[in-house]
Amino acid sequence: MIYKLNETHDPKAKSWVQSANVEGAPFPIQNLPFGVYQPSDGRSRIGVAIGDRILDVYGAIEAKLLDPIPDEIRKACQSSLLNHLMSLSPKHWSELRSRLFHLLHESASPQFQERCAALLSEQKTATMELPCHIGDYTDFYAGIYHAMNVGSLFRPENPLLPNYKWIPIAYHGRSSSIVVSGMPIARPSGQTKSADSDSPTFGPSKRLDYELELGFYVGHGNAIGAPIPIERAEEHIFGMSLLNDWSARDIQTWEYQPLGPFLAKSFATTASPWIVTMEALAPFRHAAFSRPSGDPAPLPYLFSEDDQKNGAINIALEVSLSTQEMRKEESAPFITCRTSSKHLYWTPAQCVTHHASNGCNLRPGDLLGSGTISGPGKDETGSLLEKTRQGSSPLELPNAQRCTFLEDGDEVTIGGWCRSDGYVPISLGECTGKVTG
Amino acid sequence: MIYKLNETHDPKAKSWVQSANVEGAPFPIQNLPFGVYQPSDGRSRIGVAIGDRILDVYGAIEAKLLDPIPDEIRKACQSSLLNHLMSLSPKHWSELRSRLFHLLHESASPQFQERCAALLSEQKTATMELPCHIGDYTDFYAGIYHAMNVGSLFRPENPLLPNYKWIPIAYHGRSSSIVVSGMPIARPSGQTKSADSDSPTFGPSKRLDYELELGFYVGHGNAIGAPIPIERAEEHIFGMSLLNDWSARDIQTWEYQPLGPFLAKSFATTASPWIVTMEALAPFRHAAFSRPSGDPAPLPYLFSEDDQKNGAINIALEVSLSTQEMRKEESAPFITCRTSSKHLYWTPAQCVTHHASNGCNLRPGDLLGSGTISGPGKDETGSLLEKTRQGSSPLELPNAQRCTFLEDGDEVTIGGWCRSDGYVPISLGECTGKVTG
Repeated sequence: MIYKLNETHDPKAKSWVQSANVEGAPFPIQNLPFGVYQPSDGRSRIGVAIGDRILDVYGAIEAKLLDPIPDEIRKACQSSLLNHLMSLSPKHWSELRSRLFHLLHESASPQFQERCAALLSEQKTATMELPCHIGDYTDFYAGIYHAMNVGSLFRPENPLLPNYKWIPIAYHGRSSSIVVSGMPIARPSGQTKSADSDSPTFGPSKRLDYELELGFYVGHGNAIGAPIPIERAEEHIFGMSLLNDWSARDIQTWEYQPLGPFLAKSFATTASPWIVTMEALAPFRHAAFSRPSGDPAPLPYLFSEDDQKNGAINIALEVSLSTQEMRKEESAPFITCRTSSKHLYWTPAQCVTHHASNGCNLRPGDLLGSGTISGPGKDETGSLLEKTRQGSSPLELPNAQRCTFLEDGDEVTIGGWCRSDGYVPISLGECTGKVTG
Repeated sequence: MIYKLNETHDPKAKSWVQSANVEGAPFPIQNLPFGVYQPSDGRSRIGVAIGDRILDVYGAIEAKLLDPIPDEIRKACQSSLLNHLMSLSPKHWSELRSRLFHLLHESASPQFQERCAALLSEQKTATMELPCHIGDYTDFYAGIYHAMNVGSLFRPENPLLPNYKWIPIAYHGRSSSIVVSGMPIARPSGQTKSADSDSPTFGPSKRLDYELELGFYVGHGNAIGAPIPIERAEEHIFGMSLLNDWSARDIQTWEYQPLGPFLAKSFATTASPWIVTMEALAPFRHAAFSRPSGDPAPLPYLFSEDDQKNGAINIALEVSLSTQEMRKEESAPFITCRTSSKHLYWTPAQCVTHHASNGCNLRPGDLLGSGTISGPGKDETGSLLEKTRQGSSPLELPNAQRCTFLEDGDEVTIGGWCRSDGYVPISLGECTGKVTG
C-alpha cells in the first residue's frame, strides 16, 4: 500500500461546500473522485465531485487556486480526458488531491472560496462522460463465489477448474462498447440454441443479465516486454469505479467454446462516471482474501507481504432492480444483492502483475474489471444467473412480479460504499442502465 | 462485392516509377497499399507504396498533384494515422486510389512526374509504423483446417465443436501489444503446468509459436446498437494485411479454461505495415468456402448470394523460418507453410456482420484477424503446434537443425500474394519478427 493516511483522510475535515458535509453524502471532502463532465453551458472537462457539485479542475488551475501547481499536472488537467493525468505518478496524483482538499476545505480563504464557487457545477445539470479513453478493457474472474456458483450450475461435482486458485483468470473485453452510467442498454440479438434443438436460431436474447463488478483504471503504464513486479503494481493503479458487465447468457452458452465469451458481452459494459483514487481508498484497505487451508499460496511473482496484509479493499456493494411496473407504482427499487469486494480471491496488485507478467503493456486509462463479485450468502449473488439458478428459481419482487432474467424496461443500479470505523464513509457513486427493447 | 474492375486493375498499366514495373514487384501500380511511415528526414505520415518507393500522400495533395481533391480526403490525409481516411467511405477511398493511380501512371505529365518524384522516399530507408490507432482487436477462428488440426490434438474423436459451422467463433484480443513488422518479440514468461505435476511454475515459455493470419481493418464504423446487414458489410472494410498472432502454447494450455486465451497471446501480435485496399483486391475475389454436404447453410443474417459468390479472397500465403544458425551459414529461410486464404470457412463480410449482430460498435481502425489459416495438406499448417503435432514430430530444417517450437533468434516471416489469370499479381508485403530471449 503506497498511500499513507494523512490530513485528506481526517474524519473531522469539512468543506465549505455544505452538501459535502451532510451525513451520508457520497462525495465528502475525504473522497474527491475524478471524472469528466460537460457542464450545461460548456465543453467537456475534468472535474472532481464535492457534495452535490463538480469542480472544474483546470478552471481552478487557471484561476490560480491550486498554486503552486507543477507544470505537468497543469498540462494534464487541460485535457478533456483523464489519460494524461493518469500517465503521471502517484506523487502527482497525491499532490493534486492535497491541493484540491485545501481549496475545498472550510479553512480556505473567503476569496478563494468565492472564486472557486464560480467554478462549481451542479451534478444534476451536468452530463457525465467516460472518464478517459479506454485503450484495452480486461475482465478478470476474481470473484471466487461467483466462479463457484457458476461452476456448480455446469459442473456440480467440480465447480472450480484446477487453475482457478493459481491464476488470476481473465479475458480481453471489448472497449468500444463501454458506456457511461445512464446510457440505455439495447437488448442484443444473437445465435442461441436450446438443448432440445439440433440447430441454433438468431434473435433477441432471452437471458439478459447484469454482472456486479469493480473496475480499476491503469495509471502510468509499462513498456512492452517489461513486467511489473508485485511490489510496484499499486503505483500503476489510478483508482476504482463500478462496472456492470451486461451479459447475454443464452448467447454465451452457445458461443463460448473454445475461445471464451465474445458477443455475449461485447454489446455493452456500463462504467460509473467517478474514479475514486487509491489514496482516497487508503482507510478502507483490507487483508487479501483469506485462503482456506488446502489452497495453494500465491506463486512468488504474485506474492508480497504488504499485498497479503493490505492489498484488498473493503467496499460494500449493492445491486438494485427497478422494473417498469415498479416505477409506475412508484415502488422503491428492489435490492437483489448486497455483498463486498472482500470476496475477491485476487488483489488488484496481483491482477496488474499477472496481466503484465508476460510483457503485455498496460496503458494509462486501460480498464481492468474484477469479474462478478458474489459472496457466500444467498443474497450475495452478483448476477441473476446465480440468483435465479439460471432462471429455474425466479426472484419474487415486492410487487409480486417474478424475475428470471432482465425484461425490457428493467433498470439496474450498482452502488458501492467504503466504511471503516473512525473514517468518513465515501461512495463510488452509481452505475446504472435501463434495458430497451 | 462493391468494387467493380476498372482501369486501376488494368494489367497493361505501368508506372513511371520503374521499380513498380519489374516482374514480381510486390507493389505495382495496380496495388497502391496504404501505410504510415517516417522518412529518414521527417515526421510520420501517410504513404502509398509504389515499387520500392513510398509516396507522401498529403505531400502530393499539398503540391496539388491530386487535384481536384475533395476536402474531406485532404483533411483525412493530413493525419499521421489512417483512421480518418478509414472513417470515410468506399467512394472516397476509390476516388483517392484513382487519383494516385493517374499520378503514378506513366502517362502522367513530365512536370507532375518531376514534382511527384520529390515526394518519394525509398522503402529501405523509411521506418514503417502501425498504420492506424487500433481501438479494438478481435481475432476470429475462421480457418477450419486449423480448427480441425488443433481440435484433433485434444479431441481426436470430435475435432470441431458443435458451434463451429454455425458461428464465426472469435475472441477479443489485446490491442496495446500489436506491433509493426520488424519489431523484436520478447519471449514471454508465464504460468505453465506439466501433465505430471500437481502445481504450476512460472518461467519463460518453452512452446512459443507463430500463427499465420490475415487481418482486415474496419473502415467506417457503426453506432452502438446498430447491426450491419451482410449486404452492407464490405462497405465497412478498408483493406487487408498480414498478421502473426504469436502464441505461447504452454501458457495457453494452463490458463485458457474457462474464458479463453489471455496472456498466451497478449504479449505481442505483429502486423504487416501495408494495408491492401478492398478495391485493389477486386480481381482476386473468390466464392465463399465450399461447404461439404452435410454442413449447415449460413443462418439468414450471415447469408447473401453475392457474398457466397464473391465474398472470399484468394491470397497465397507463406511462412518462412530462419534460425540464428541458418543466418550464420547464410542459408535461405525455410518455408514451413504454403497455403491459401481460400481455406477460411467464413468470409470477411460474415465476420463483420456477426461481430456487429449484437449491436457491438466497430470503429475505424479496428482490426479483425482471420484466425490461423491452414489448409488440408501437411505442408499447409499455419502454426508449429500443427506442423510438429505439439512438438512430438519435430521439423527437420535443411541444415539438420530440428525445430519443435520457436527458439531465441528464430525469425518468422509471413508473405502473401494475390494472383489471378489476366491480372498483375500484387503482394500484401511482409510480416516479420525475431524472437529475443
